[in-house]
Amino acid sequence: MTTIRDVARLAGVSSGTVSNVLNRPSYVRAETRERVMQAISELDFVPNQRSRQFRPGRTRSIGITVAELGNPFFVDVALGAEAFCREHDLGVVLCNSSYDPLLESQNLDLLVQQRVQGIIISPVDEKSSRLDMLRDRGVPMVFVDRVGDDRDVWSVVVDDREGGRLGAQHLIGRGHRRIAFVGHPHRSRKVRERYEGVREVVDRSAGDITLEIVSSASWTVNDGRAVGAALALRPPDKRPRAVLCANDMLALGLMQELIRAGLRIPDDIAVVGYDDLEWAALGAVPLTTIAQPRAELGRTAVEMMISLIDGSGSALEANHVVLAPELVVRDSS
Amino acid sequence: MTTIRDVARLAGVSSGTVSNVLNRPSYVRAETRERVMQAISELDFVPNQRSRQFRPGRTRSIGITVAELGNPFFVDVALGAEAFCREHDLGVVLCNSSYDPLLESQNLDLLVQQRVQGIIISPVDEKSSRLDMLRDRGVPMVFVDRVGDDRDVWSVVVDDREGGRLGAQHLIGRGHRRIAFVGHPHRSRKVRERYEGVREVVDRSAGDITLEIVSSASWTVNDGRAVGAALALRPPDKRPRAVLCANDMLALGLMQELIRAGLRIPDDIAVVGYDDLEWAALGAVPLTTIAQPRAELGRTAVEMMISLIDGSGSALEANHVVLAPELVVRDSS
Repeated sequence: MTTIRDVARLAGVSSGTVSNVLNRPSYVRAETRERVMQAISELDFVPNQRSRQFRPGRTRSIGITVAELGNPFFVDVALGAEAFCREHDLGVVLCNSSYDPLLESQNLDLLVQQRVQGIIISPVDEKSSRLDMLRDRGVPMVFVDRVGDDRDVWSVVVDDREGGRLGAQHLIGRGHRRIAFVGHPHRSRKVRERYEGVREVVDRSAGDITLEIVSSASWTVNDGRAVGAALALRPPDKRPRAVLCANDMLALGLMQELIRAGLRIPDDIAVVGYDDLEWAALGAVPLTTIAQPRAELGRTAVEMMISLIDGSGSALEANHVVLAPELVVRDSS
Repeated sequence: MTTIRDVARLAGVSSGTVSNVLNRPSYVRAETRERVMQAISELDFVPNQRSRQFRPGRTRSIGITVAELGNPFFVDVALGAEAFCREHDLGVVLCNSSYDPLLESQNLDLLVQQRVQGIIISPVDEKSSRLDMLRDRGVPMVFVDRVGDDRDVWSVVVDDREGGRLGAQHLIGRGHRRIAFVGHPHRSRKVRERYEGVREVVDRSAGDITLEIVSSASWTVNDGRAVGAALALRPPDKRPRAVLCANDMLALGLMQELIRAGLRIPDDIAVVGYDDLEWAALGAVPLTTIAQPRAELGRTAVEMMISLIDGSGSALEANHVVLAPELVVRDSS
């Protein structure tokens, strides 16, 4: 019987590389992969299917990996998913990737070793080779809050471009002409889409409306504070009259610094957030924001996962659900 | 060879009951347990140790189960634990018990099946028979934010009584005489200890200081809103002049309703929270609160876990660490 070592010898690579070609093909350079595949076919080698295929455990359980548990958005998505899992007697373990692609890979490995029946992921790195590997091994997978480029993974997202449009229409409708987008459109596809929605509405509007991008380091309350302090230092005629923030945490930190500097919200600057966290309504000035149906994101992802696990979805094309965001007007605008 | 069935027959119980006595003794009534133990000793039955003992997986990973992931306190504890795990190449999976003892048991079962090397738990039900079972099977365990009654589980907590004292001393020092404690001292040991700290300071103080308990359904922002609305409806002379809340979420909801009803904070009512969540400083009135070192709670629990897993702690007496809370004065008092 031909073994993996025979293949390795013929291809001039290590057994580990052959194993990688079989189990984690994206780990291996195309040229090497080709050589190994040729050796496999020359030798009529039949890999041991059992060791390649993903074998789920007997306990009905799934894993959820979130991009950043410190962001309440993801906590709420996870809570929505968990509540739905409970109704369907599905155990859940949660992993946090802290926006770190390496940690995300380790978490995925851990979940597979623990033999969960499927993984719901809000990916930090949607091009991760680990995700390819899981797909190749047949691990049921659902993306939440992200659509993969190749769109062959099931996904559920909220329409970010529409969210940006809603915020911009609201501010322009209130007569604002000098608008800023606070965030970092080039570091996240989601934020870029929110920005593009804003841009689209601004471009289509009559009158000379200006749209400035004010970059933030990341998306935390502290980043918002830094932006707020910087805006407060500008002379009034160089300051935007209205800002759309990439999320509520930025908006809350930003408002705090503006108020500390003696600026009035919304009279001096109108502020719109994004997410509608529980805290958005509790800020110094209750925050106008774009509400995302967070629990529903989680719930929908579990629904998809259940149909993948039970097989009812496995033969279908990848399914993509887009949920609608909603404008919630409060005092900050 | 004597089998479990021989024992069952002699004791007049099912094999399952014998297995429970061996693996989950707390599941079985004392009288039945006694009968089974007698049969075991009469028949010289030796249980199969291998199937009883907890066998950790080869991957270095631990499980954390939190009482309620919807409470940011627990998110911060988990994040502190995770950061420390990362530094020590320890994988982490998180489970949420949603304050439900049954779900907690299921989560513990799931973590053991997944063969984590130990479990850090902020227990919903510290008398849970599942916890006894895990202990009997030798699963390394650390309580976080809770000390077990029998004190044979390692634990790390914050001194709640001291936290209560700090809050009461602060309010009395500011001249307040009519004080209320908002929460539910009889539904949680931790809240009871906070209340007792307050009580102690009030009892020791000169002058006629009154301390009233205002019960809340639970500890959420909405529960705080309900209490705030009720207090606002009272005539001014029946209203406390200062309130200590069992946590920040209660305090934030309460402040929002008081402000909505036209009351001024702290002029009409001073408010003190508990926890120092990130949002405490962002409320309509920045909140005075008792800060808990949440990340340090998580970090310390992992430190303990590592010494239990590595064996350096296994021969030691259970270790109990008590961290100190801290008063953070802001505008609400």
